Amino acid sequence: MRTLRLTIAYDGTRYAGWQVQRSDGRKPTIQGTVERCLKRILRERVRVVGSGRTDAGVHALAQVAHVKTRSRLPVDRVRRSLNALVPKDIAIMDVREADRTFHARFDAVRKRYRYRLFTGSVVPPFLRRYVHHVRHPLNIAAMRREAAALRGAHDFRAFTRAASVRGRTIRRITGVRVQRGGDELVIELEGEGFLHTMVRSIVGTLIDVGRGRLPAGTVGRALRSKTQGLAGMTAPAKGLALVSVAYGRSPNR
Amino acid sequence: MRTLRLTIAYDGTRYAGWQVQRSDGRKPTIQGTVERCLKRILRERVRVVGSGRTDAGVHALAQVAHVKTRSRLPVDRVRRSLNALVPKDIAIMDVREADRTFHARFDAVRKRYRYRLFTGSVVPPFLRRYVHHVRHPLNIAAMRREAAALRGAHDFRAFTRAASVRGRTIRRITGVRVQRGGDELVIELEGEGFLHTMVRSIVGTLIDVGRGRLPAGTVGRALRSKTQGLAGMTAPAKGLALVSVAYGRSPNR
Repeated sequence: MRTLRLTIAYDGTRYAGWQVQRSDGRKPTIQGTVERCLKRILRERVRVVGSGRTDAGVHALAQVAHVKTRSRLPVDRVRRSLNALVPKDIAIMDVREADRTFHARFDAVRKRYRYRLFTGSVVPPFLRRYVHHVRHPLNIAAMRREAAALRGAHDFRAFTRAASVRGRTIRRITGVRVQRGGDELVIELEGEGFLHTMVRSIVGTLIDVGRGRLPAGTVGRALRSKTQGLAGMTAPAKGLALVSVAYGRSPNR
Repeated sequence: MRTLRLTIAYDGTRYAGWQVQRSDGRKPTIQGTVERCLKRILRERVRVVGSGRTDAGVHALAQVAHVKTRSRLPVDRVRRSLNALVPKDIAIMDVREADRTFHARFDAVRKRYRYRLFTGSVVPPFLRRYVHHVRHPLNIAAMRREAAALRGAHDFRAFTRAASVRGRTIRRITGVRVQRGGDELVIELEGEGFLHTMVRSIVGTLIDVGRGRLPAGTVGRALRSKTQGLAGMTAPAKGLALVSVAYGRSPNR
């Protein structure tokens, strides 16, 4: 039995998210699509285990997943055959042999997410699937001060959706950056792990503070409250991308 | 009668190019699409005159066009209404009042084109519409030396397609750049004007030299030959974008 490690990029626009749905919706999932194609190549049913879910509409530059297989197909052949089969909005960037015990979810030690806001008056057609258009003027200095409160370990219960709260809601944020570049404002978050919709809820709150709809200090108060509903709005999925997943001591990018 | 100056961005993937076709093909054109939408907004038939054509599949970050109209609609209203009507792969970035005599084609003094090559093994899904995937190793130093021969005024007959040669084939190239960035190689050309498929023919020739299929000095020889067919292959449309058009003394971007 081999364990293969896959690095997968996808445009999440058309998908119901990473994970195969119990209720089987109308939209395909990334995981289901890759599993279906791998079955044809490896000639056996496999489970593609991702580093974590991404929600419907969320993109990935380098999602990491593992697959256990009996097939002896060389990794380059797996990558090429898979890229010939998957739809064009999914690309298998890399396939390599992994340690037999490698687990894409349990072994992940750090993840980086990037959220892109577009602040110009008209979104260029090339960006429309990948940015959230904010028409209000944003106070970036205020957003940066707010974002700084996220660093470190906190109870992020205020920043996740009701249905998803189970187990511990403490997470550690190791990096936060709010970066302007032309008409784009990019918010990057790095951490050991994130709760469901946590990044989008953080970004939505930062936007609300940036446009003056919520007062300075909202992030700190929401964290201390440990209460759902006290954060700002949840920013739309299309602006979000999983940028990288790090394993062990060396990041994978 | 007012003259309006429009700046238009488009993803050319779905289109038969900028210009309305006599033979009315199956694919829409950018010009035809914008004219159809403008007619509804201005309540009169108008001609949208672009700075020049772009071929089927070629993109634009900032094509410039003018329109003459009797409508008194404010420019902001025109822009917003137009963006609400055009398909999502076209965006009207700007609409402003122009001098009554402004002509988008005749007054253009300089154009900049950008061609994006992807040289990594797998094209990320976000780039697939905008890059040409080159799987051969490229000698970039050789491509730069070759590109340098393009500067200045030359007869570019070797770099255009047969059917399109009419009138003068001398053009002046004012800027050439071959720039590597990660897995991308970007070729930028700036000049007073370009012949039909000239940029793609230049890029194709640079690729052919870069991968060793054509010898060093091919560009110079093709220019001196003034003969069609002596350049390399024509690179595919999807890697090409019209970046900007400059008017008068100040460039518009």
